[in-house]
Order: sequence, then structure tokens, then C-alpha cells
Amino acid sequence: MRKCYFDHVATNPLHPDVLEAMMPFFKEEFGNPLSIYEYGSRAKNAIEDAREKVAGLVNAKPAEIIFTASGAEANNFALRGIALAKQNEGKHILVSRMEHHSILNSARFLEKSGFVVTYLPVDKKGFVDPAAVKKAITKESILISVTHASSEVGTIEPLREIVKVAKEHNIIVHTDAVASTGNIPVDVKDLGVDLLSMAAHQFYGPKGAGALFIKQGLRIVPLIYGGIQETGRRAGTENVPAIVGMGKAAEFAQKELQGRMDYLRPLRDRIIDNMSGVKNVFLTGDRENRLPGHVSFCVEFIEGESMLLLLASKGIFSASGSACSSKALKASPVLLSMGVPAGLAQGSIVFSLGVGNTSEDIDYLLEEFPAVIKKLRDISPFAQGWGDKEEGGECTVKK
Amino acid sequence: MRKCYFDHVATNPLHPDVLEAMMPFFKEEFGNPLSIYEYGSRAKNAIEDAREKVAGLVNAKPAEIIFTASGAEANNFALRGIALAKQNEGKHILVSRMEHHSILNSARFLEKSGFVVTYLPVDKKGFVDPAAVKKAITKESILISVTHASSEVGTIEPLREIVKVAKEHNIIVHTDAVASTGNIPVDVKDLGVDLLSMAAHQFYGPKGAGALFIKQGLRIVPLIYGGIQETGRRAGTENVPAIVGMGKAAEFAQKELQGRMDYLRPLRDRIIDNMSGVKNVFLTGDRENRLPGHVSFCVEFIEGESMLLLLASKGIFSASGSACSSKALKASPVLLSMGVPAGLAQGSIVFSLGVGNTSEDIDYLLEEFPAVIKKLRDISPFAQGWGDKEEGGECTVKK
Repeated sequence: MRKCYFDHVATNPLHPDVLEAMMPFFKEEFGNPLSIYEYGSRAKNAIEDAREKVAGLVNAKPAEIIFTASGAEANNFALRGIALAKQNEGKHILVSRMEHHSILNSARFLEKSGFVVTYLPVDKKGFVDPAAVKKAITKESILISVTHASSEVGTIEPLREIVKVAKEHNIIVHTDAVASTGNIPVDVKDLGVDLLSMAAHQFYGPKGAGALFIKQGLRIVPLIYGGIQETGRRAGTENVPAIVGMGKAAEFAQKELQGRMDYLRPLRDRIIDNMSGVKNVFLTGDRENRLPGHVSFCVEFIEGESMLLLLASKGIFSASGSACSSKALKASPVLLSMGVPAGLAQGSIVFSLGVGNTSEDIDYLLEEFPAVIKKLRDISPFAQGWGDKEEGGECTVKK
Repeated sequence: MRKCYFDHVATNPLHPDVLEAMMPFFKEEFGNPLSIYEYGSRAKNAIEDAREKVAGLVNAKPAEIIFTASGAEANNFALRGIALAKQNEGKHILVSRMEHHSILNSARFLEKSGFVVTYLPVDKKGFVDPAAVKKAITKESILISVTHASSEVGTIEPLREIVKVAKEHNIIVHTDAVASTGNIPVDVKDLGVDLLSMAAHQFYGPKGAGALFIKQGLRIVPLIYGGIQETGRRAGTENVPAIVGMGKAAEFAQKELQGRMDYLRPLRDRIIDNMSGVKNVFLTGDRENRLPGHVSFCVEFIEGESMLLLLASKGIFSASGSACSSKALKASPVLLSMGVPAGLAQGSIVFSLGVGNTSEDIDYLLEEFPAVIKKLRDISPFAQGWGDKEEGGECTVKK
């Protein structure tokens, strides 16, 4: 049976050359980067080399990159570190309703600690409106966090415009670029953000390596205290192999970015175009401003999980909403915030493609997916009385 | 030239069989453990298998083990997570002066957040006195954190007795067992602790994997918020290969523990016995209650760093104090708290042995180390007028 991995927003396979670059650091180069003898200095040099490459990928300076163990850690670090560093200037934080749980739950933690959080609304495509940001800003506002691109619906946010509004009020801007870094151009200078989170396993790097870009001169309170690693801003013995892998993956991503986008977009568009012919299957997110390999639908009358399982039995691996909540079995808060009715949101499915996917994979998906939908609707109590009599659905969510 | 790695407290080389166990998870088994299809469930099963093995090593239940990315993260999580969870019952915390920076700096962070911290004194061997703990306890005390064994001086603390005192007052006890786990028996039931931190790279496992034992039923506030990984107590996509490696390393450590201790102790003792003949070289820590492969000295009239560099030039790799502060170039707070004079504390050196070290390595060390000491003293301004006229030093620190 053909196996098609269409869940790159959950995690990517590791690039074999990245693994090869990591291998010496699992073997002879096992030193602790803080040790002053040769094993230590070689490990330290490897980390600094990786830092340069990660900085290069997002057009930052190496000293502006702090390694973490995950995108989630980077997001927690950014939100809580800036909140604590700036609390004397104000205690109001703005985050969008498109954010990942690591942002939303960090924001809720801050609310319990006395901060006030505004959850910025989004439109039916998942866009945060810069005018709404402007309206929500108060004299107490110290930080705005808006995702660069949504892993759930693929929407790329108008970050530059949001930063422009923020900077008029001298407010720090963080962006969760975990889903975008390595997949679309990410340039901290062009975006104008002060902090940016990324995760290596989202661009064919290893799990266990993330990073936070922190603009030079910006004060931040650490999330993990201890030794003097990462210039005292993130303690813990460095995961040298994973950091080396992140650097290598960043190098490849920078080099291959345009080619990857050019390869993925037509595959993505073929799925969207073909599925628009299937009744009551709605594309979620925006058609144009979306991640190159990202396709997401809400399928009426069917639960996402049934689709996932039936597709998986045919060797097609996909997700329903965010991987970090896939087992929580709740309707996605992101979809609900976009105005998708709760029932329809339950029928969410995301196909996220990677450079390992082929045109034949897409053929197979386009053959099997409509069949799966038909099969499940045939046995769905919600679909009774419906069927072929209905009008064909528009490929957009009605808000 | 012979190369002798005597810095196992900084980090261990990775066991080749551990690496082999990790490899599939860098290749075909790249799935996200939260995904509901086969790649996800196999990754999830691998994590649960590792959890069982780590639990086995410390005699815990698997559900009591939460994976982290480092020992430092586990320490931060324990201190701050319990402080926040219990703050309504009191805001007093006790930590010993033997603690690692990840404990001490977390404690300082809590002080800034309104907690009161008592830094428990230690005696000249580095022991925390249970009677001193009892004396320091107040009605506001909620948490005591005392290391299981010091990575700097090797001293194994009387943890059982400290727990006994704590439990008379219904106070939570955490121990940093990063230096001890996998090196001496660590049994959470026998010790009676509520929380215990460990790190895989301290027992021939990979960097990037740590764990916190949290006694069943104990409420703790997360350090990293986000998805539902680790039953909602530690977010972030799991570093599957590193966790698998930690499990395998724990399995080996459990099986081989007695053999490792029996192998290391005589090597350790040979160094201590032989060096006791060198004038004004003082053993730090206790002679008996110390980690099996751990030797630490203060060498009068010489800076630790000069010894490290000269030894390194001869292929002998060691540390001066904790790796996490080795580049901070300050006299070790641990040694100062034991009453070692600041000048003498500057001459600190730690040889930490591992199962890869041979008897010939020890021969080489015992040949080279006294020569290095002599050479440095010959050029030390502090040693002028000293020399062979002085009496031979006792192999203990005078307090």
C-alpha cells in the first residue's frame, strides 16, 4: 500500500544530511560546550556555527538567537520573559485567537499572575485585522503576540502591518513563526518583530531544538535559570547534536526555500481545486496568503477523527486541527474564532505536504479522500436526508 | 598521546547501544507522538516504554515520570512549580548551599516574586545537617530542596534524615539527583522524596533528555505551557529519540549499577590515596559518602584553570567546579559555603571517572598530575618562599 505522509505541520521527517551532520556529536564529539578543553571548545564552536546558520535563515545576528528545546519553550520564554521584564511599564498583553496553545496557555498563566490579556478577533479567513489591534491597544499595553502563519488553516498574517501599528505605540511584538520558518521567507528585519519563535522539526531538522530570536538590546527574563549557557538567558546543558542539526536544517532551508515553495504550491493547489468539486467541503483559511504545502478543509456531517482513521487505514496520514490538541477531541478554538460553526469545525482535516510528497501521492489522495467522505457520510446520522440533492458547497467558510 | 576523559560530571559519552536504540527515531519512526495514526502511536509507545524504564531506575511508577529537556529544566520546574502550586499555604522555601545554579537561581527568582528562601548551611565535608533543616523550618515552609549528591565535591547528602524532618512538618521535598541517578542507587520510595530531577547525559544517555519524578497526587504548576504532552504538565513536541535514549540508558544503568560502582570506587580511591602524599593538596567532600567515580581537590597556590589547561595539554580532561559555571571564573560558592578559603577554592579541580576509564588512565593521571602541580607552583607568585620546607598537608579541608 502506498504511504503518504501529509502531516508536516505535526512534524517533518529528518533530512538525512542533517542527521549525518549530527552524528559526530553522538559519538566522539560528546563534550560539554562549557568545558575549556578541546572536547568542549569543539562542541561550543559547533553551536556557534549553528547559531550563525539559524540567524542567517531569518536575517538576524547570531547573538540574537537563543536556542531552546522546542517552539513551545520559545513561545513560553517570549511571552512570560517579556511580561516580567516590562511589567513595570504596564500589564496589558494582546494575543490573537489564531495562536498555538503554547501562546494561549502562557497568556492564561499571565492572567492568573495579574496581567490583562486581550484576545484579538480574527475574520473568517483567520486574518488578524491591524485596525482591531490598534483599537485594542491601551496605555498599559507592553506586548503583542501574533502568529506568522497558522498551522491549522495555513493563513499568513499581515504581520508587517500589525508591527507598524504596535511601533506607533512603542509596543514589543512577538511572532510564533514555528509553522512558517523554513517554509516561507521569514525576515525579522523586514517583518520588524522584536521576538520570533521557531522549531527545527518544522523544517526537516530534529526534534528537541527550537530557537527564539530576541532583538539586540531587548531585556528578557529567563524561563529556565541555572548556568551561563546561552549568555545566561537559557540554562541547561546544550543539546549539541540537536542544535547542530537545527543549524544544518536552517542552512538547507535558506538555500532551498524558493525551490521548496515552487514545488509545494502546485501540489497544494491541485488538492484545493479538485476538492472544491466535492459538496459541502469547505476550504478553511485563505486561498492565496497561505503556507505553500498547507491544505485544510471542514467536511460537513463527518467527524475529523473518523476521516483521519479511515484515511490512515489507506496509508494517508493527516491531522485534524493542531497536533498538540489532536487527542483533546474538542472543536478547534481557532476554527471557532473564525466563525466556523461548532458542528462543522468537528469535521476539520489538514493535509500538510512536504518535499518528500510526489504528484502520485496527490493522485492517490484525490482518489481516496472523496471516497472516504462518501463512505462516512453514508453511515453518518447527521447526513441522513442530505446526499446528492443539496447544492454544491462553496469552497469557503460562511461567517 | 593518551587521552583520558575525567569529566563525567560535565557530561558522559553516549553509550553506543543507546545511540543504536535512538536511530530508528531519527529515520523511519519520525512521527509526532500525538498523531493518531501509526507513526504517532509507535512514537508514543516508544516514549511510554522509556518512561517505564526511567521509572524502574528510580523505583517510581511510570505515571510519576515527566520528561524534560534537561536536569536544569527539571529543577526549575520542581521549585517554581511547587512554589506556585503551594503558595497559598506558605511562601517559605529551604534550599541548601550545595545546590546547582539551576536550583539557586530558581530560588533567587522566587525571592523576587515574594517568596522567602533560607539557604541551608553545610559543614566542611558539604553535608547538610538535618538538625539545621529542622531549626530553619517555619509555619510558612512549603518546600525543601537538597541535592542528592554534589557534582562538585561528590558528597552524598543524608537525604533520608532530611526527608524525615520535613515530613514531621508536612513539607514537600525535592532532590536534585542529576549527579547521582545512574551512578549510585536512587530509590524515590526509600529516600521518601516527593520530587526528584535527573538528566540522561549523566548516565551515558543523550543530551536533551531529563526527567522529573513527581509523586502521584502532587499538584504542580507547569513550567512550559502548551499542548497536552506529558499529561498537560510539560508542553512541546516530545524529543522522541532523546527520550528513547534516556530509557535505554536507564535500563543499562539499572542493570549495571553495582558493577559500575564496584569498578569505579577502587580507581577513585587510588587517586585519593596517591594524591594524599602531595603537599597542600586537599580532598574536598567526604572520603566515604561520595560518588563512586568522583575525586575533587583544592590545590594550594595554583589556579584551577591553569591546572585544567596544562592537564588538557597532556590529554587529561577535567573540571574546576561545576561545568555550568566553569567559564564564570569565580570561586565556587559550594566550596566557599563549606568553609574553604577563597584563595584555596580557586585551586579547585575535579576528576570524575566513567566506565570507559582504565587503570592505565589512572596511572597516567598519577604520573602527570603531581608534575603539573609542581610545574605551576614553580612559577606561581603565591608559592614563593613555600616549597619543600612546609609540612605535608592533610587530605581534608580545615574549616
